[in-house]
Amino acid sequence: MKKFSKITIIGVGLIGGSIGLAVKKRRLAKVVCGVGRRMSSLKKALKKGAIDVATLDLESGIKGADLIIIATPISLIPQYALKIAVLSDWAKTETIITDAGSTKEFVVKKLEGILPKTTHFVGAHPFAGSEKNTASNATADLFKGSKVFVTPTKNTHKKSLSKVKAFWKAIGAEVVQMPPKKHDELVAAISHMPHMIAAALVNAVSRDMIKFVSTGFRDTTRIAAGDALMWRDIFLSNPKNALKSISSFKKSLDALERAIKKEDVGFLMRQLEAAKKKREAIL
Amino acid sequence: MKKFSKITIIGVGLIGGSIGLAVKKRRLAKVVCGVGRRMSSLKKALKKGAIDVATLDLESGIKGADLIIIATPISLIPQYALKIAVLSDWAKTETIITDAGSTKEFVVKKLEGILPKTTHFVGAHPFAGSEKNTASNATADLFKGSKVFVTPTKNTHKKSLSKVKAFWKAIGAEVVQMPPKKHDELVAAISHMPHMIAAALVNAVSRDMIKFVSTGFRDTTRIAAGDALMWRDIFLSNPKNALKSISSFKKSLDALERAIKKEDVGFLMRQLEAAKKKREAIL
Repeated sequence: MKKFSKITIIGVGLIGGSIGLAVKKRRLAKVVCGVGRRMSSLKKALKKGAIDVATLDLESGIKGADLIIIATPISLIPQYALKIAVLSDWAKTETIITDAGSTKEFVVKKLEGILPKTTHFVGAHPFAGSEKNTASNATADLFKGSKVFVTPTKNTHKKSLSKVKAFWKAIGAEVVQMPPKKHDELVAAISHMPHMIAAALVNAVSRDMIKFVSTGFRDTTRIAAGDALMWRDIFLSNPKNALKSISSFKKSLDALERAIKKEDVGFLMRQLEAAKKKREAIL
Repeated sequence: MKKFSKITIIGVGLIGGSIGLAVKKRRLAKVVCGVGRRMSSLKKALKKGAIDVATLDLESGIKGADLIIIATPISLIPQYALKIAVLSDWAKTETIITDAGSTKEFVVKKLEGILPKTTHFVGAHPFAGSEKNTASNATADLFKGSKVFVTPTKNTHKKSLSKVKAFWKAIGAEVVQMPPKKHDELVAAISHMPHMIAAALVNAVSRDMIKFVSTGFRDTTRIAAGDALMWRDIFLSNPKNALKSISSFKKSLDALERAIKKEDVGFLMRQLEAAKKKREAIL
């Protein structure tokens, strides 16, 4: 992959910080610039070696960048896109803009609306992370072996799409390409639903009881310690699919509930065996 | 702790096998005998060094034992207790009988009804385990740092209770004593509920989607790979509390669902923050 001159990462939390570390480890850019809203986060990223330079000023941050990655919570992505749109003469640059938002239909529609037609925007979602989501927890290999969803539309600039895909591959990720809509249905089921369930489970257990928990409860609810704002944005930017997933989960739980209520030994056994078999297949 | 002459473990899966290994590592008995229904399981336990001798014959297995531990799935515990009851002259022995069942009210009531008043039965539930539940996965330190619930009633022989507690402590566990009823309410919330939810979650996701899952889904559903028969017995021997837990979980999930539906940003944020804070407290 041809080296970038300047990669600018907006939002240097776990994802932004890890992108920076990965880029620097693999020498994919001459300079990595971090842009943020708080000097404290930028300092953490600098200290970690995730970025070479840091700034609170978006204009100077994106100046000369040939790749801009917006790695903020979803609700901030359109605001940054708006500011970026007015700051550059997009007809003259070849800058690629991408993002790391966990939902794609909302983000891609918004950004295709906001950014001029001459920009080179490609939606992406690195499917990696942790409940520990500051730059201090960033690692250069966070994306190694992880999937990254790249979600082009009919408006996507083909050459930029190829470059974004090559970029993620270069930092170790497995690129999976699909339309934004399909992506959002998928992650609602395999990512948003588990988070809602984990949060609901924690909230359903009293403080008296929670002190007795063991590994089972801990594992089942680990993700509930994730950043509340990030997850709030995820659910509210993909509500239709999130609600659809809750509804299909409830049906599945209702089936177990009915079997226990009716003492339907056979049905309960079959449901548990089906879950066991399906779960073992993804060990 | 005074050494036992002969400890007999009925059912040598993960729990029974790990008890055997722990006893042998700490030399807590002159001999450890394993009793089972299948020679294949007993051979695994022998090979692992979890038991010294193995037999399919209950009578010879329990002969001369001063501690009998029933570590089978719950539905088999009463059957073994019945057989044990008729095999010994309990007025003359000082044998302690205990179990490792994950629910206690059903087991303790049954066994206090079945075993003669002269027996020394003490209900117990080692709160440890794994979805990999054969003797091949047994370890001498499975109980180290784990909680073991000991659930005496007004009928429990005091000296035997002390001995059972000392036994679990000797193999590394933290003993928590509580009445069977309170135990069952507690584990329904912190153990049975997570399992039902994990199983329901796996069953709610299509095979097409499940191949894309990441660490979040994997952790949330790990326990769904647990033994179906063991869990079936757990739910059906504690149905009232299991159903009560499902109901309080559903309320908690409904709250998130409503917040997403109504786009109640503030409420959703508070719910997610509450879950995060509570979960972080048990990291």
